[in-house]
Amino acid sequence: MHLSELTHPNQLHGLSIRQLENIARQVREKHLETIARSGGHLGPGLGVVELTIALYQTLDLDRDKVVWDVGHQAYPHKMLTGRYNDFHTLRQKDGIAGYLKRCESKFDHFGAGHASTSISAALGMALARDMQRDDYKVVAVIGDGALTGGMALEAINHAGHLPHTNLMVVLNDNEMSISPNVGAISRYLNKVRLSPPMQFLTDNLEEQFKHLPFLGNTLSPDMERLKESMKRLAVSKVGAVIEELGFKYFGPIDGHNLEELIATFQQAHQMHGPVLVHVATVKGKGYELAEKDQVGYHAQSPFDLATGKAYPPKKPTPPSYSKVFAHTLTTLAANNPKIVGITAAMATGTGLDKLQAKLPKQYIDVGIAEQHAVTLAAGLACEGMRPLVAIYSTFLQRAYDQVVHDVCIQNLPVFFCLDRAGIVGADGPTHQGMYDIAYMRCLPNLVMMAPKDEAELQQMLVTGIEYTDGPIAMRYPRGSGVGVPLMEDGWEPLPIGKGEILRNGDDLLLVAYGSMVNTSMQVAQMLSEHGVEATVVNARFVKPLDTELIVPLAQQIGKVATLEEGCLMGGFGSAVLEALQDQDVMVPVKRFGVPDQLVDHAKPNESFADLGLTGSQITESLLKGFFSKQLSMVSR
Amino acid sequence: MHLSELTHPNQLHGLSIRQLENIARQVREKHLETIARSGGHLGPGLGVVELTIALYQTLDLDRDKVVWDVGHQAYPHKMLTGRYNDFHTLRQKDGIAGYLKRCESKFDHFGAGHASTSISAALGMALARDMQRDDYKVVAVIGDGALTGGMALEAINHAGHLPHTNLMVVLNDNEMSISPNVGAISRYLNKVRLSPPMQFLTDNLEEQFKHLPFLGNTLSPDMERLKESMKRLAVSKVGAVIEELGFKYFGPIDGHNLEELIATFQQAHQMHGPVLVHVATVKGKGYELAEKDQVGYHAQSPFDLATGKAYPPKKPTPPSYSKVFAHTLTTLAANNPKIVGITAAMATGTGLDKLQAKLPKQYIDVGIAEQHAVTLAAGLACEGMRPLVAIYSTFLQRAYDQVVHDVCIQNLPVFFCLDRAGIVGADGPTHQGMYDIAYMRCLPNLVMMAPKDEAELQQMLVTGIEYTDGPIAMRYPRGSGVGVPLMEDGWEPLPIGKGEILRNGDDLLLVAYGSMVNTSMQVAQMLSEHGVEATVVNARFVKPLDTELIVPLAQQIGKVATLEEGCLMGGFGSAVLEALQDQDVMVPVKRFGVPDQLVDHAKPNESFADLGLTGSQITESLLKGFFSKQLSMVSR
Repeated sequence: MHLSELTHPNQLHGLSIRQLENIARQVREKHLETIARSGGHLGPGLGVVELTIALYQTLDLDRDKVVWDVGHQAYPHKMLTGRYNDFHTLRQKDGIAGYLKRCESKFDHFGAGHASTSISAALGMALARDMQRDDYKVVAVIGDGALTGGMALEAINHAGHLPHTNLMVVLNDNEMSISPNVGAISRYLNKVRLSPPMQFLTDNLEEQFKHLPFLGNTLSPDMERLKESMKRLAVSKVGAVIEELGFKYFGPIDGHNLEELIATFQQAHQMHGPVLVHVATVKGKGYELAEKDQVGYHAQSPFDLATGKAYPPKKPTPPSYSKVFAHTLTTLAANNPKIVGITAAMATGTGLDKLQAKLPKQYIDVGIAEQHAVTLAAGLACEGMRPLVAIYSTFLQRAYDQVVHDVCIQNLPVFFCLDRAGIVGADGPTHQGMYDIAYMRCLPNLVMMAPKDEAELQQMLVTGIEYTDGPIAMRYPRGSGVGVPLMEDGWEPLPIGKGEILRNGDDLLLVAYGSMVNTSMQVAQMLSEHGVEATVVNARFVKPLDTELIVPLAQQIGKVATLEEGCLMGGFGSAVLEALQDQDVMVPVKRFGVPDQLVDHAKPNESFADLGLTGSQITESLLKGFFSKQLSMVSR
Repeated sequence: MHLSELTHPNQLHGLSIRQLENIARQVREKHLETIARSGGHLGPGLGVVELTIALYQTLDLDRDKVVWDVGHQAYPHKMLTGRYNDFHTLRQKDGIAGYLKRCESKFDHFGAGHASTSISAALGMALARDMQRDDYKVVAVIGDGALTGGMALEAINHAGHLPHTNLMVVLNDNEMSISPNVGAISRYLNKVRLSPPMQFLTDNLEEQFKHLPFLGNTLSPDMERLKESMKRLAVSKVGAVIEELGFKYFGPIDGHNLEELIATFQQAHQMHGPVLVHVATVKGKGYELAEKDQVGYHAQSPFDLATGKAYPPKKPTPPSYSKVFAHTLTTLAANNPKIVGITAAMATGTGLDKLQAKLPKQYIDVGIAEQHAVTLAAGLACEGMRPLVAIYSTFLQRAYDQVVHDVCIQNLPVFFCLDRAGIVGADGPTHQGMYDIAYMRCLPNLVMMAPKDEAELQQMLVTGIEYTDGPIAMRYPRGSGVGVPLMEDGWEPLPIGKGEILRNGDDLLLVAYGSMVNTSMQVAQMLSEHGVEATVVNARFVKPLDTELIVPLAQQIGKVATLEEGCLMGGFGSAVLEALQDQDVMVPVKRFGVPDQLVDHAKPNESFADLGLTGSQITESLLKGFFSKQLSMVSR
């Protein structure tokens, strides 16, 4: 069967192992071809091809529900659920999303861009099923990396307490999150993977049985049952921890052996109560380069399949904010042993792998555990270290209470460095760094800043490290900097809560925060071409806001626009509104930012255009809103 | 030694067991006497009297650091660290705080009002110690309830991975959080508590040894070592899960036997790497009524020590919002089997215990696991149930990413009922429900409402249950309702996003949200006495805000004040500012709410007065700000 003819996963039911292997081959080919051309997550999907096929072979997907943790491992799922023919549009605007989406397919039962959510969601579905006296199967597929996230452990604690709620958890154990896994759980799983019963089961079970005196070369049905019992007995020892937590344990099984997978899933489906099937997979399976370099091939920009090398960019781009951050931090940390960089399993994404390589003692990877990362940083700060949490804006949401309760309320000097703040592009709604200004601005004691370019990021990094009066946060966007020259050293800290004037003009005040400062300068230039002269303020800090600078300028100029790469509700623009009203300055203010909607996956420039946030769109809007009279007079 | 003479915990060092028992007695007496008079957390502190004394007897608290999880178990700690003589001011304005506070004592190494943070903070301190080549001890004391919180498990996963980082975790296992504990971990611990090795160790170890043929009545030093080894061997079996996670395990030990506690702590302090000491305690120990009713005596309003009965209120108060919520929900749920009430270990606080009692199948307690609670609700919503998460505003912070990523982005109909929203009183800064308007308002798809009184809470409860287009949240304050009549049934849902006019006046527009509507009416009355007639709008919804009602009124009346019981930054008032500016309406707006500061523990009315949020303070501020000219004209 060609995959393009597979429109429903139940079509897998009748197929032989050989036919399924053929399907697996096609999934891998399409997967590799698509990611090589368009970029995306490579390794995770390749590791679960057989797991997905075997699981779907044993389920009725018209009724049964599979919840995939962090949807980027679900590309094979997408191809097997009617999206093969559109798969080439992956992660492109209006194309197939890079994560699961309930609105994309009835087989996407729960969307997931962040890790560790699947067991909670699946348990909710299982409880709903039982309350409604239905009897379909619910399966959560979770990676061993995601299993270290606290909410997954909370869910296991709850599910293990419910012996009458049927729920299958498939543990996709590839010994990796994005980087090699951290933590005691991972070490334990690794021990289980390497323990004798696993070898016994996967390598030579039949052989072992043949040598038992009372068995011949063929096993009677009774003996088959005995074999199954022995198998379960053997594994129950290695899965002791999991069984203590109330789960029946199956495994570990070879995640690339369809026959073994199918047999185990079938057996596990018969169980009552919560079941965990431990599947040992290889991230990047079937693409040698990815198997060898699992970190490098976790996610990829477009690359040459033959060599594995990323295509060079069409034109040279300035270094990314993350890169400048990592480089500068490493330089600073080399001269200051108090600095500790903390990541929650995003060493490569945040650039902290550079710190790890040069100064491993000043680097901590806590695994997928954002909550712990923040409170650990608070503990370090208590004892005089200079902890810096490097984290994506969207993932800091996972540690919000820790920011409030452990850091801000105690006024501890933790430095939050929020990467990917703003529009993130192809990763889509679950990853947009949209809310941090709003959700952090309300917290007492916190200083919040955003650099206008990569050189200012260097200055702010120094500022944040030198500021020890309390917590401080810096946000910066995904992708390339503006292209300004960088300094190798000699950075000076910026004064806290002070903005700067970048341009003077009497007609309009543009107050911008972070990445939108650059856009503001473009807007000012375009406005100038229409005879409108704008003052541009780089606010630098949203908290404390430089009201001494902004409010008098607003009063004097009489027309204000605010620009930010974040949500409008409660964001930077609202901070400006609050400041003006608090000082009884009543002038018209137009706020530019992300309106109250989700932002779908697309190229960042496509998203900006959709949201009306390009320089020319903003210019046009300002001309219409503020200067239509003057302009019509001019045009006469 | 009398406790009043104990100014430093190191004074415990020289004392005999009998003297320590005497100290324990004094701690209990003071504890009981204080809580009985002033109210507060009764059971948790009584359970850890011996644990605290024994631990401090084995530590040098000039150097060593103890991090207490959820500080309400740390009252004995407070008495033993120089606060005995002030202890009678517990939870009163400017008195001793009900939780730990770094600014209150140098022995309060980490503040904690929310659960499950201690291991992360302690590990951060331990890592800082090692980085700075120091060698003091770091101890985290955590309850078995708090251990089910995901971040505690994240921390254990990390600590267990660091064999060279000395860290002691003391597990205060009383089989309870506030209610009896939920989950597989709790069941496992219970099994451990009851398993033979524990009996062996605690009851008759010496006896057992005496009967061994090669031992006499006295043990040689070698034999003592053998005994210790055997003891450790025995316990290592029952602590297998914990040891698999990389911790050396000691216990379970009797948490009320000072001799055993001290011996075990001393032994455990000698270990290298992470150590867990499992202490079996009885919540409420030493006060029989509290031992028998551990839920009822977790926290108390003032009561008669002899009878255990709470003193009746001086004047009858209207039922609390929580009570009206619980009663109405139970009535509604009885007629709608789709409704499921979910709590994270706060059954009594939220009132969901009423639902549990009447409709146990429509009730879920997930334990201290807010993240899981929210995503579980999302899973239930996917399958057509009507999940309602009853949670304190401050604790929803723990599940912020789940609200964003699992509920709002997917637009799932989960109903968040936020109790204790606003000023909470004696619990202080960690529990203030101050930020929810700001941190939720920025999220797409979410509807947010707040009732003006307990009858409107009933209507909003119906509204939230009937609204299935997406997520919806209702916030309501701690404490008594306004005293309006309630309905037993026949509630009608309110139109989404529509406010109401409660009073008409031409001079000023008061727009209030939730609990401040009542204050607004008082303010309007007082203003009227000064000749200023105000229109009062009950906004009901902050999102979507009723701009059709509010904006034209603002324009027409020309002066606006907003009132809310929440932070001013990004809150309800900012929503009004945004709405006015978006429609180019420029009128002066005064925003009343909580400024950008922490709010310390005090009686709610004391806090309101401190913040300038009483009716008369607001009236005065409005008269000064808006009507000073008129008033001076009037007074002439």
